[in-house]
Amino acid sequence: MNGRPPRRPSAYGAAGVDIDAQERALGGIKELVRSTATPGVLSELGSFGGLFRPALAGYREPVLVSSADGVGTKLVVARMARDYSTVGRDLVNHCVNDILVQGAKPLFFLDYVGAGVLEEEVMVQLVGGVAAGCRENGCALLGGETAEMPGFYQPHDYELVGFIVGVVDRPLLVDGSRVTAGDQLIGLPSAGLHTNGYSLARRALFEIAGLDLDSRLEGDPRTLREVLLTPHLSYLGALAPVLADPGLHALAHVTGGGLTDNLPRVLPRGLSARIERGSWRVPLEFLAIQRWAEVADHEMYRVFNMGIGMVAVVAPDASERLLEKIAAAGVGAVAIIGSVATGCEPVVYA
Amino acid sequence: MNGRPPRRPSAYGAAGVDIDAQERALGGIKELVRSTATPGVLSELGSFGGLFRPALAGYREPVLVSSADGVGTKLVVARMARDYSTVGRDLVNHCVNDILVQGAKPLFFLDYVGAGVLEEEVMVQLVGGVAAGCRENGCALLGGETAEMPGFYQPHDYELVGFIVGVVDRPLLVDGSRVTAGDQLIGLPSAGLHTNGYSLARRALFEIAGLDLDSRLEGDPRTLREVLLTPHLSYLGALAPVLADPGLHALAHVTGGGLTDNLPRVLPRGLSARIERGSWRVPLEFLAIQRWAEVADHEMYRVFNMGIGMVAVVAPDASERLLEKIAAAGVGAVAIIGSVATGCEPVVYA
Repeated sequence: MNGRPPRRPSAYGAAGVDIDAQERALGGIKELVRSTATPGVLSELGSFGGLFRPALAGYREPVLVSSADGVGTKLVVARMARDYSTVGRDLVNHCVNDILVQGAKPLFFLDYVGAGVLEEEVMVQLVGGVAAGCRENGCALLGGETAEMPGFYQPHDYELVGFIVGVVDRPLLVDGSRVTAGDQLIGLPSAGLHTNGYSLARRALFEIAGLDLDSRLEGDPRTLREVLLTPHLSYLGALAPVLADPGLHALAHVTGGGLTDNLPRVLPRGLSARIERGSWRVPLEFLAIQRWAEVADHEMYRVFNMGIGMVAVVAPDASERLLEKIAAAGVGAVAIIGSVATGCEPVVYA
Repeated sequence: MNGRPPRRPSAYGAAGVDIDAQERALGGIKELVRSTATPGVLSELGSFGGLFRPALAGYREPVLVSSADGVGTKLVVARMARDYSTVGRDLVNHCVNDILVQGAKPLFFLDYVGAGVLEEEVMVQLVGGVAAGCRENGCALLGGETAEMPGFYQPHDYELVGFIVGVVDRPLLVDGSRVTAGDQLIGLPSAGLHTNGYSLARRALFEIAGLDLDSRLEGDPRTLREVLLTPHLSYLGALAPVLADPGLHALAHVTGGGLTDNLPRVLPRGLSARIERGSWRVPLEFLAIQRWAEVADHEMYRVFNMGIGMVAVVAPDASERLLEKIAAAGVGAVAIIGSVATGCEPVVYA
């Protein structure tokens, strides 16, 4: 007996797992992973752990910042559309934003793909999207895991999970501790639903309204396929130039929980965010979902980002300067969407 | 409208997602997470990213080592047994071993739980297991994500994914580059299947043999429930004392792919691992699976660990000393299971 057995018949194959097919799919992925390499990467794909040497010269007290996330039931839309090429970028950008709010820049990323049967072309779409997102954020795709789990996942269903590690110098940690009454809220536009609220969106648009992926919402030239698969934006490019600005007091990434639950995560107790709802244009898709599913306003703002993907809490005397700097990065209609006041309600909508 | 809306009725609840129930489950988890805190942890659960300040004094060139993993269809056994208390430890120990083979010790861990409906008691079992595993390995549970994905996961199905970051000083990196012909292979016993081969194991034991979780294999007093849910061992305690020993040339974690695919990952080209199959006792469960599913020997050694969970490749003049040191940690019957020779077949079984 030796290490290169005849390939068939295979009892494991009969149980639904094809190790050789997994290895072929992995081969197609190696090049994608290599395309994301940054100077810190010391390992090749295939080693047990990924090796990364952070460049810490100049840091007074390096702090690692890490986050885990998924794409939620946006994956169901990807399956419906038979297009898994966009969700990888969603995942990376979501994770990048989650550590960016504490002032951290990404070092490396790892992904996990779970499926009943791993199809090579889907794997390449998934990991291709992850790799593109990593390249765009200057982040190395250091490793990952693919798991074939027959009997657990339905055929053609794919789970996608990501983990990110970044670094921030402790004196530059953005933690909300300097937020005070009078601070202004700068809202950065989202590109749509990003990765939250898809269970409700699917119910409203597909089940209640009876629309499909080729349908268009009135006033929007895009198909629902495009609307619902538009990737989550990364705010790294827009915010990196202002992370060290003393006028920047806090950042909140608007994900599950909406403005309602995410802004309080960075507000000191006794302060209240007052949101001026007329200060930005809520994208059409949110209004359509609300109308079809008859969702109350307060719930819309707790499930969806409503068009604001990131909020910067800034000192009043810095707001104009910071708004201009952020807008210069071209993320769209950046606006003052409210302010901070004393109060017991963490978020109040006007 | 304000940030504390009436709790019902909820359109999102009708779509299958209960944000409040998620938050209650999260409350029960906070204490578990806190129990794993190590001196490097700077953040509380609930911040966007977890903050970790590594203690790098004394390191010449710190290298971060990272790995992502899942538990595979061992989760199906957990569902059958209605017992999710053990798979968290599986996950942590698997990840700890994956970075240990490069000489790294764990710093922190993040988990991801995906489910159709998050049940609080299951979440506490899952995260309780993860937290216990983290404490046992001196690793902080720095954060995680729970995703409720109705329509994607079947009710009572839970996906569990983990991600670890550790550190090694570059001069102490264990990378297999010093492996030469004549090196000895020290095998460390597994506790059973660990987390690999469950699709084939379930097919053999439940579908073909018609056994159930209360069945016992001849000669084994344990029920299959116990056999199949025995956690993956961590080898950190056994190997930490020898990681800096110059006689230690390589480590291979025996996971999916078995000895056949995992040993070659750390062998320089042109060298061949010769495994003496009579040198350890293959646990009964592997023999039962092989018999029921009529699995060829070569496939058994590529799907299962066959009783060897970790292999240390050591210099011949260090083998006795290292074997004694490793055995002293009490992981069971540590043995020389083979040696390294020149040859083109990466693994040869005798």
